[in-house]
Amino acid sequence: MEIKNRIITEARQLFVKYGIRSITMDMIAEHLGISKRTIYENFKDKNELLKSCINAAIADQRKMNEEIIRSSSNIIDAIFVFIKNSINTLKRINPAFFYDIQKYYPAIWRKTIHKNDERNFNRIVSLLNKGISEGLFREDINVEIIARLILEQFKLLSNQEIFPEDKYSMIDIFENIVINFIRGIVTDNGLELIDTYNI
Amino acid sequence: MEIKNRIITEARQLFVKYGIRSITMDMIAEHLGISKRTIYENFKDKNELLKSCINAAIADQRKMNEEIIRSSSNIIDAIFVFIKNSINTLKRINPAFFYDIQKYYPAIWRKTIHKNDERNFNRIVSLLNKGISEGLFREDINVEIIARLILEQFKLLSNQEIFPEDKYSMIDIFENIVINFIRGIVTDNGLELIDTYNI
Repeated sequence: MEIKNRIITEARQLFVKYGIRSITMDMIAEHLGISKRTIYENFKDKNELLKSCINAAIADQRKMNEEIIRSSSNIIDAIFVFIKNSINTLKRINPAFFYDIQKYYPAIWRKTIHKNDERNFNRIVSLLNKGISEGLFREDINVEIIARLILEQFKLLSNQEIFPEDKYSMIDIFENIVINFIRGIVTDNGLELIDTYNI
Repeated sequence: MEIKNRIITEARQLFVKYGIRSITMDMIAEHLGISKRTIYENFKDKNELLKSCINAAIADQRKMNEEIIRSSSNIIDAIFVFIKNSINTLKRINPAFFYDIQKYYPAIWRKTIHKNDERNFNRIVSLLNKGISEGLFREDINVEIIARLILEQFKLLSNQEIFPEDKYSMIDIFENIVINFIRGIVTDNGLELIDTYNI
């Protein structure tokens, strides 16, 4: 098991740094100082390895988000930590990664995007309700509709048809989505809090 | 030409009121007091008639929007008139219309949705710039990104996968999209203006 996790960790870093297409199984083996055969004993092919990398990344992201919510004093505080962390993560991801996965691994991409839809939806609904009960989000928003809208906007983030990577920076898109979204649903108290973050 | 326009006007009303599937060419002919043959002399088939109806509706909508902008004192005023008019329009459209067009005429629907993408995009960009120059929208929004985001959200309005018509009301979705979008990008002055509309 340990070698399997080591392969995932190394492959993840390489894919994220250089994109998926340019990284061969040989290169991953070389970086780990193991034989290519060892990789194939653990993963049927590059597809399967890529899927494991993505699942690991999603699990890490989820853990991080839960930790943020646990350690924040209110929902807006949590969102600003989330923004900062997400921007740091995006800065580390080569746009080639998103380009490659959508172009060369569309089935994996679709599954990644949609697989956690309902879980993410329920997550966002409960965060919106938390914000409302803290008096920071407006009571008159339709929580379900708003949750679907933000979920769909996050999907646009890496949509090459709408935001081709040579024209738009993912970080700019992310900031515009989240900042305007959050400003759109806050109460006066919430807005005052946002303004203290000065971003 | 006159009879062609009469057919379009009548068919439009019937499609909008009862959906597309349930309205036959016979019914349209009967409503107009003309023969079905006259309809077929002007339109190859129901597909072509439907396309003409949609083009007419889009042209009317565009004219109405231009009129709103011309006669409004500022962009937020314009948006609230737009919201009111759009809700009135949506109230008149049977959800079956959107269901039918997506299910039975997907090619027409895709074309309708995408055909005016660039024109609508440029339109929204210029409205956002107008709002910024009026001091009502924040200068730090990325106008292009914001325009793409609102355009995509409008497309979600009738997306049956995201918002199935038996669970969500289009008017609720529309209001949540527009109100939160606009609150998200306004300056303090813009927000004060919004609050006077009390919606």
